[in-house]
Amino acid sequence: MHAPDAPQSDAAIHGARLVISLDAIAANYRKIAALAAPAKTGAAVKADAYGLGLAPVARCLAKAGCEIFFVAHFAEGVALRAILPDAHVYVLHGLPIGAAEKYIAHALRPVLNSLPDLAAWRSVGSRGIGAILNFDTGMSRLGMGSKEAATLAASPGLLAGVQIDYLMSHLSCADTPTHPLNAQQHAAFNRLRDLFPGMPASLANTAGVLLGPQYCHDLVRPGIGLYGGCPAGTGGNPFQGAVQLYAKILQLRDVDSTDYVGYGATYRPGGPARIAVAGIGYADGYMRTLGNSGFGAIGGQRVPCVGRVSMDLCAFDVSGVPEELCAPGCEIELIGPNVPMENAAAAAGTINYEILTRLGSRLARSYIGEGTGT
Amino acid sequence: MHAPDAPQSDAAIHGARLVISLDAIAANYRKIAALAAPAKTGAAVKADAYGLGLAPVARCLAKAGCEIFFVAHFAEGVALRAILPDAHVYVLHGLPIGAAEKYIAHALRPVLNSLPDLAAWRSVGSRGIGAILNFDTGMSRLGMGSKEAATLAASPGLLAGVQIDYLMSHLSCADTPTHPLNAQQHAAFNRLRDLFPGMPASLANTAGVLLGPQYCHDLVRPGIGLYGGCPAGTGGNPFQGAVQLYAKILQLRDVDSTDYVGYGATYRPGGPARIAVAGIGYADGYMRTLGNSGFGAIGGQRVPCVGRVSMDLCAFDVSGVPEELCAPGCEIELIGPNVPMENAAAAAGTINYEILTRLGSRLARSYIGEGTGT
Repeated sequence: MHAPDAPQSDAAIHGARLVISLDAIAANYRKIAALAAPAKTGAAVKADAYGLGLAPVARCLAKAGCEIFFVAHFAEGVALRAILPDAHVYVLHGLPIGAAEKYIAHALRPVLNSLPDLAAWRSVGSRGIGAILNFDTGMSRLGMGSKEAATLAASPGLLAGVQIDYLMSHLSCADTPTHPLNAQQHAAFNRLRDLFPGMPASLANTAGVLLGPQYCHDLVRPGIGLYGGCPAGTGGNPFQGAVQLYAKILQLRDVDSTDYVGYGATYRPGGPARIAVAGIGYADGYMRTLGNSGFGAIGGQRVPCVGRVSMDLCAFDVSGVPEELCAPGCEIELIGPNVPMENAAAAAGTINYEILTRLGSRLARSYIGEGTGT
Repeated sequence: MHAPDAPQSDAAIHGARLVISLDAIAANYRKIAALAAPAKTGAAVKADAYGLGLAPVARCLAKAGCEIFFVAHFAEGVALRAILPDAHVYVLHGLPIGAAEKYIAHALRPVLNSLPDLAAWRSVGSRGIGAILNFDTGMSRLGMGSKEAATLAASPGLLAGVQIDYLMSHLSCADTPTHPLNAQQHAAFNRLRDLFPGMPASLANTAGVLLGPQYCHDLVRPGIGLYGGCPAGTGGNPFQGAVQLYAKILQLRDVDSTDYVGYGATYRPGGPARIAVAGIGYADGYMRTLGNSGFGAIGGQRVPCVGRVSMDLCAFDVSGVPEELCAPGCEIELIGPNVPMENAAAAAGTINYEILTRLGSRLARSYIGEGTGT
């Protein structure tokens, strides 16, 4: 993955820029699809495709062969329908009261999380638009419980006229392969499948796919892996990085041990140092917890974030970096080959998912690749 | 401040909603203006008016009498110019190489942070558009240092033909009134003023205004106080709350001590409990650090956030809340009269500024009041 130079016209405008590789996203999709086959591979594109842009990402995934998409909210489904007229689009947050006709109008497929969801969907006839039956098997989030499952299995009339595409559940601890809940949820899911024989099934997110073929069933629903994030807390990242983030240096300062850096005077250099003030801050998603903790890279050299992160600015110690690489207008890599997203997340005290989904609207975005992969 | 009911048409669409009181913002502006008078009162509207929406907030502030606005980036200035054709708009991040003509084309006033910034502005003639001379007096962020100040004072030709509206600096520790850096920066700023006699001056942000009239000079530049945030780490909040955040309950679950809540199985109820799953997550700005730490309110009763916050969902323990207040479709207050933004920020391990600036684009936004205040 090669980050092109920023367009000249952007030079005056943006303090930081984001480069998103559609080639990497397409390649990651194909990698997961190969791991999960013969199960189908859908894609979680909720939250603006994890912050990377719903339209370009969804089109890229569709070109790579994806036909099944998951969003969280109805409004996200409407947006995706305008982008991909023929895709199967599932709305994870279920069917709010009075919304069934709206789902049908946009051919959106609800994930039915409760018996009232199911009743509402049945009542409108659903007109050939499939739905998912979602069960909670161990994280107490959305979905029916074992009691509702028993009720449903004993009363087939509740499903009359409703086309169920998949039986679904969601793993709580798949990012920790050794966690006992994985096997417990798998067993609970298999008991549900026994209640509804012949119904296609879907359990795995990205981390679930990596747990092995027994977790893949008929459909997998990766998210983070598509976007190049490592889904597991340990081990190497099997996916291609899809995101690079660069902040522009606005000013260089020579400071000394008598100076403070940033709000609250939390950082004082140990001696003479050179500080680069960069045009990115927590309003852009460079989280405040990265102050005195995060780091960037210039020419492969690690440069620590010093002082608190401001709303629109932060400072890096660039002592020892050649001046031609850190003059005003030069860039600091904040996510990329030298700064994996997982390392940035660890420095921020969070996970790569939160880093991605809070990348801000002021970042200049560019997409590289055709989404066709190599 | 009264939050109106969500429009019915939104019921199927949004998982959470944000109510922004323009009346409160206008009242906060007038309060600060009264405190700062005879200094003028500008407004920091960078970062989309601290996440609350540049257009409605800027119009509201202009109606309340504000004529001077501060943004961080050139692109923000262009956006604001389209909203307020006659306002004085200052761009804090200075003048990138080659950008001077663009500033003039949009009548944007640069904050000149270096001698090269000044030279670039001088070279285009600036054609009657004023600028600010910014000096760093103790936080090693943007601005000229004491050496540049001396150079400039000794070489008036460097300012020839340039209209300087204000001499400016920025306080590092104004949120801690007793911090010794406040007086040090104030003294350093006064030494700068002595170098440029007669030049109007601007030092204070919201917290600076609260430090007293000696910090207000000719122009103050509040941000957080306008938006109802308490600018200081201690003491009461002198400003009116301008933001209310409500998440919709999607599902209620009865759980017990054998159940886990959320990813990673980090929460287990001590006994029978009722969990409300709400349609907001860290992608919406409900920060991941609020898991097992934050809280909401229903009918004035505090409800703790239990388990990890997911990307699009999180869970609250609503045991004991009357069922008619926590049924699916009901709302949990996450910021508002019962949950001050500062408390949410403290639970998240951050400051109100970061809470505001990360409020996400999926939140349904509504504005109340005419921006005329009461």
